[in-house]
Amino acid sequence: MALNVYLSGEIHTDWREQITAGAEGLDITFNAPVTDHGASDDCGVAILGAEPNKFWHDRKGAQVNAIRTRKGIEDADVIVVRFGDQYKQWNAAFDAGYAAALGKSLIILHGPDHAHALKEVDAAALAVAEEPLQVVDILRYVLTGKLPG
Amino acid sequence: MALNVYLSGEIHTDWREQITAGAEGLDITFNAPVTDHGASDDCGVAILGAEPNKFWHDRKGAQVNAIRTRKGIEDADVIVVRFGDQYKQWNAAFDAGYAAALGKSLIILHGPDHAHALKEVDAAALAVAEEPLQVVDILRYVLTGKLPG
Amino acid sequence: MALNVYLSGEIHTDWREQITAGAEGLDITFNAPVTDHGASDDCGVAILGAEPNKFWHDRKGAQVNAIRTRKGIEDADVIVVRFGDQYKQWNAAFDAGYAAALGKSLIILHGPDHAHALKEVDAAALAVAEEPLQVVDILRYVLTGKLPG
Amino acid sequence: MALNVYLSGEIHTDWREQITAGAEGLDITFNAPVTDHGASDDCGVAILGAEPNKFWHDRKGAQVNAIRTRKGIEDADVIVVRFGDQYKQWNAAFDAGYAAALGKSLIILHGPDHAHALKEVDAAALAVAEEPLQVVDILRYVLTGKLPG
Amino acid sequence: MALNVYLSGEIHTDWREQITAGAEGLDITFNAPVTDHGASDDCGVAILGAEPNKFWHDRKGAQVNAIRTRKGIEDADVIVVRFGDQYKQWNAAFDAGYAAALGKSLIILHGPDHAHALKEVDAAALAVAEEPLQVVDILRYVLTGKLPG
Amino acid sequence: MALNVYLSGEIHTDWREQITAGAEGLDITFNAPVTDHGASDDCGVAILGAEPNKFWHDRKGAQVNAIRTRKGIEDADVIVVRFGDQYKQWNAAFDAGYAAALGKSLIILHGPDHAHALKEVDAAALAVAEEPLQVVDILRYVLTGKLPG
Amino acid sequence: MALNVYLSGEIHTDWREQITAGAEGLDITFNAPVTDHGASDDCGVAILGAEPNKFWHDRKGAQVNAIRTRKGIEDADVIVVRFGDQYKQWNAAFDAGYAAALGKSLIILHGPDHAHALKEVDAAALAVAEEPLQVVDILRYVLTGKLPG
Amino acid sequence: MALNVYLSGEIHTDWREQITAGAEGLDITFNAPVTDHGASDDCGVAILGAEPNKFWHDRKGAQVNAIRTRKGIEDADVIVVRFGDQYKQWNAAFDAGYAAALGKSLIILHGPDHAHALKEVDAAALAVAEEPLQVVDILRYVLTGKLPG
Repeated sequence: MALNVYLSGEIHTDWREQITAGAEGLDITFNAPVTDHGASDDCGVAILGAEPNKFWHDRKGAQVNAIRTRKGIEDADVIVVRFGDQYKQWNAAFDAGYAAALGKSLIILHGPDHAHALKEVDAAALAVAEEPLQVVDILRYVLTGKLPG
Repeated sequence: MALNVYLSGEIHTDWREQITAGAEGLDITFNAPVTDHGASDDCGVAILGAEPNKFWHDRKGAQVNAIRTRKGIEDADVIVVRFGDQYKQWNAAFDAGYAAALGKSLIILHGPDHAHALKEVDAAALAVAEEPLQVVDILRYVLTGKLPG
Repeated sequence: MALNVYLSGEIHTDWREQITAGAEGLDITFNAPVTDHGASDDCGVAILGAEPNKFWHDRKGAQVNAIRTRKGIEDADVIVVRFGDQYKQWNAAFDAGYAAALGKSLIILHGPDHAHALKEVDAAALAVAEEPLQVVDILRYVLTGKLPG
Repeated sequence: MALNVYLSGEIHTDWREQITAGAEGLDITFNAPVTDHGASDDCGVAILGAEPNKFWHDRKGAQVNAIRTRKGIEDADVIVVRFGDQYKQWNAAFDAGYAAALGKSLIILHGPDHAHALKEVDAAALAVAEEPLQVVDILRYVLTGKLPG
Repeated sequence: MALNVYLSGEIHTDWREQITAGAEGLDITFNAPVTDHGASDDCGVAILGAEPNKFWHDRKGAQVNAIRTRKGIEDADVIVVRFGDQYKQWNAAFDAGYAAALGKSLIILHGPDHAHALKEVDAAALAVAEEPLQVVDILRYVLTGKLPG
Repeated sequence: MALNVYLSGEIHTDWREQITAGAEGLDITFNAPVTDHGASDDCGVAILGAEPNKFWHDRKGAQVNAIRTRKGIEDADVIVVRFGDQYKQWNAAFDAGYAAALGKSLIILHGPDHAHALKEVDAAALAVAEEPLQVVDILRYVLTGKLPG
Repeated sequence: MALNVYLSGEIHTDWREQITAGAEGLDITFNAPVTDHGASDDCGVAILGAEPNKFWHDRKGAQVNAIRTRKGIEDADVIVVRFGDQYKQWNAAFDAGYAAALGKSLIILHGPDHAHALKEVDAAALAVAEEPLQVVDILRYVLTGKLPG
Repeated sequence: MALNVYLSGEIHTDWREQITAGAEGLDITFNAPVTDHGASDDCGVAILGAEPNKFWHDRKGAQVNAIRTRKGIEDADVIVVRFGDQYKQWNAAFDAGYAAALGKSLIILHGPDHAHALKEVDAAALAVAEEPLQVVDILRYVLTGKLPG
C-alpha cells in the first residue's frame, strides 16, 4: 500500500516540512498548494494581465491556484488540513469540505483553542491531531501497522 | 422550473428572513441549518447523553447537525453561504467546499472587507453578493428572467 | 424538509413501532425490510420453486429480499441500524456498510454490551443511540430544531 | 491483467498467509487491515491521546483504522471476506456491504455452519468458498484461465 | 414504498399484459419500449427522412427508440427482461447489461430451454422466473411482504 | 412516462414556441435559458453592480445565467440544441457537450448547411432534425409510440 | 496515449489473434474473457464443488467468470464485441450494454447478416466493423492518426 | 505532481507546438485530437467503407474520432481549448462543455475579439488566456509554483 497525501492549510509555519521529514522512508507522495504567499496572491495577474480591481485580481489568482488545489485533492487518499493561529483560513475549511464531499480520509490538525470553532470540520474527519508528528504516526501506522514508541 | 435553495452560514442576523420574505411568490423551497445557537451546540448531549469532555460534547452535536446539513446541501440546486462579521465561520466555508465538490451552484454573500480572505471561496461561486436582496434578485431572475427595477 | 428513513436490522422486538409511533406528525417516510421471519426466509422458493439444497434455498430468498432492501437503502436519507441481543445479525452490519459507502447518514442503535464489537460500524455513524426514542428525538431535531424536554 | 485483492475479516488464523503463499507467481497485489489485534484496538489513543471513556477510545482507533480499510477496499478489484468461528465480526460484514455498494467483486469465505446467517452477504458475492485454497484457485483462474488439477 | 418497473424484451406475446394485470392494486409504475414492431423499426425514417441504406434506416430508428429505452431503464428500480422463443433478442440482453451496470435490480424471465445460453445474464439477476405471474408474486412480496397462496 | 426537455441554443426565432405548441397534450415539462437577449447579457451587472471592463461584465452575467442553464440541463431527460443561421453559438455547442458528458439524450436541430461543421455534435446525438415539428414528432413517439400521419 | 482494449464475444474463431497480431507495435493492452469453452463452463464447480442442478452449475461458473469480465470491461477504454454466426451470444450483447452504461467506447464487429438484429447494439457503438483488421485500423488511427494504405 | 493536459480546438496554427515546446522539462503528458484535417474528416469511410451520403460520411468519421477525443478528455487533469479566427469550431465548444461537466480544469485560449461570443465558455474556465505562452506559464506555476520573469 502506498498513500497520496495532500497537505492543505496554513502556510506560515514549517508543519509540512515536519511531516515530510518525519515520514521519510514511507511510501507516500505528498502534494500541497503553492506556499509562497506572494506568488499565490499574484499568479493570476502576473500571467494573465493586471486588474485594477482587487476583486478580479484575487479571482484570477484563486482560479489559477484552484487548478493545483483540485488536482492535489482529487488525487489524494488522505487530506491533512492544518489550521494555524492567524488569519481566517477559509480556504483551508473550504478544502476540508471539498475533500469530505469526495469521500477522502480527512485528518485535521489544530491547537486546542480552535476545537469548538472547528467542531463541524473535525466531525467530518477520521483523526484530529494537535502536532505534525501525530500525523506522521498515523500515516506510518496506516501503512505499516506499527505504533510509535 | 422550481429551485431548492440551502441557506448556509451566519446565524446572528436576519439575512435568511430577508431572502425568504423577498422571494415570496417564487417557486423556491428554502432549507437551512438549525439556527438556534444553543440547541445546535447541545443537541448531541441533550439527546444522546452528557459528555464530560467538551471535545466529544461538540462532536456529538456536530454529527447530529450534519444529518440536517448534508440533507440540505445534497437536495439543493443553489447554496447561498453567508459570511458575517464575527466568528471564524469555518463551518460556512466547509459547507461551501462540500457543495462545490458536489457541483452545486454557489452564491457567496459577504461584505467587502472579507473579499480577500474569501477569494478561494468566491472563486468557486457563480455569484458573489453583498446584500441579501441581491440574492433574491438572482433567484427571481433565474426563475423568471426578470431583472429588478 | 422531509426525510426518508430506512429501519434496518433486528426483527424480534418492537423498536420499529416505537420509532414510527414516536415520530407521528413528523414529515418522515419510513421503510424497512420484510419483518416476517418465515416469509423472509422462504420467499425465494415459495415463488420461484423449491430447492433441495438449503444453500440455494437461502440464496433465492436473500436475492428476492435484496430487491426491497436496496430500494429502501438507496431511497433513504437516514439509515437506522438496530443490533439486538441475539443472532449474528450480519445482514444488519452489511446494510450499514452498504449505506456508508453510498454516503447515507447512519444512526446505529444498540445496547452498551455491543459497543466494542460494533466500534467500526459506530465509527461510520453520525449518531449512536441506545434507545428507540433517542432516534425519534434525533429525527425530530433534524426536521424541526426542537430538543426534547 | 493484474488484480488488487483486499483480504478482510477474521484475524486469528493464518488464512491470509495461505492465500498469499498459494498465489505466489500470480500478478496480484494483496492488502489487508492491520492484523495485530492490540495495535488495532489501541492505535487511536496511542497516537492521539488517551480517553477515559472506552467508547471514545474505540472510536479514535476505529477511525484511524478506517483510513487503511477504505483505501484498501477502494483500490481493490476483489474483496475476500473471511468469517471465522469466533466473535461477532460485524466489521467484516460491514466491509462486505461497503464493497458491494462500490460494485467490487466479492468472495466470501466461511464454513458451512455460518451459511444461513450469512445468506444476505453470500447473495451479494460472486463466489462463496470454504477454504483459502479455493480462493487461490479462483484468483488463478481469473488471471490465467487455468483450472486446478 | 412504490416501485418503478421497466419491462424489457420480447414483444410478441402478452407477458407485459399478464404482469400489469396481475399487479393491479400495487403501487407500481410500469414502463416499456414501444411494442409496435413496425413503428419501432421505422420511427427514425418516418420522422427524420428516408434512408436508402438499410443500415442507416435501422440506426435512425434504434437511436430514436434509445431515448425511450434509456429513460425507462434509468428511472426504474427493477428491470424485468423477457427472452422469448424466437429471434436473437440481442437488444434484450443489451438492456440487461445496461441495467446491471447501473446497479438496477434485474429479474430475468425465460423458459428452461434458454437457461444455459442465458447463464451470464441470469448470474447478474436477483431473480430468474419462468412465468409472468412469478414476477407479479415477486413484486407483490417486495412491496407488501405477502407471499402467494 | 413523462419527459423533462431542455431547449438550448438559438434565441432569435420562434422554434421553442413551435415545439411547445406542437407538444400540447403530451406529458412534457419544458425548460429553456432566459431568451431575452438584453436581460441575459446584463443580468450580472444589473444585480451585482457595474463593471467597467466588458470581460467581467460578461463574466458576471454568464455565471448568473449558468445557475439556470445547469439546473435546466441536469434536470432534463432530453436536451434539444438548436443552431440557427447567425452568430457563433458556442454556448449552444457547450451545452451539447455538457449534456453529452452527463449521458443525456441529445436531439440536435439545424439546417443542412451546418451539417459538416456540426458533425462532432451530431455524432453525440440520438437524433438530428431540421425542423421543430420533427422534434415534436420524436417526443410524441417516445411518449406514446405513435408515428405522425 | 495508450489504450486498454477488451475483446468480448465470440470464442470459436481466431478474431482476437488477428487483432492482437495486427496491432503489434501499438501501445495497447488487450484483455479478454477466458476463451477455453470447457474451462469457462465448469470453473465454478471445478473450484467450489459440484452441483447436481445444471442451473446452479451454470450460476457458479458464470459468477466466477464475472470477476474477470467486469475487471476487463471496467479497466478498458475501448470494448470490441464480436458476434459470430453461431449461438445466441447473449453474453456478448450483455457485455455491450454493460460497457455502454459505463460510457466506454464500443466497437461492434459482425457480418452484414446480423445488422438488423443488432441495430440497438450498433446504435450504441462508435464504430461497426465487419472484419478484425478494420478494428486494427481504427485502433492504429486512434493512437497515431495514421490511416491504412 | 504531474499533469495530463489535453489540447483541444483549432488545428490550423502551431499553438500546440508552442505549448509543448515551452513546457519542455515539466512533468506533463500532452494529448490532442488528430490534427491532420483530411485524415480526421475521412477516417470513418477510409476504414469502414464509403458512404454516398455526406451526412453519414461525416458521422462515421466523427464517431471514430470520438474514441480518441473522449479518451483524451477523460484522462486529462487540464483541458486547454483554443478558438482561432476561422470556422465555427463547434467541436471545440462541445469539448469544453464535455470537460466542464466532468469537472476538469479548463483553460480557454482565444483572442479578444471572441470574448463576448465565448462568455459562457470562459465563465466555466479557471483561466482565459490570449497567448499559448500564458498557458505554459500557468502549467509551470501549477507544477512548480514559479512565476515567469
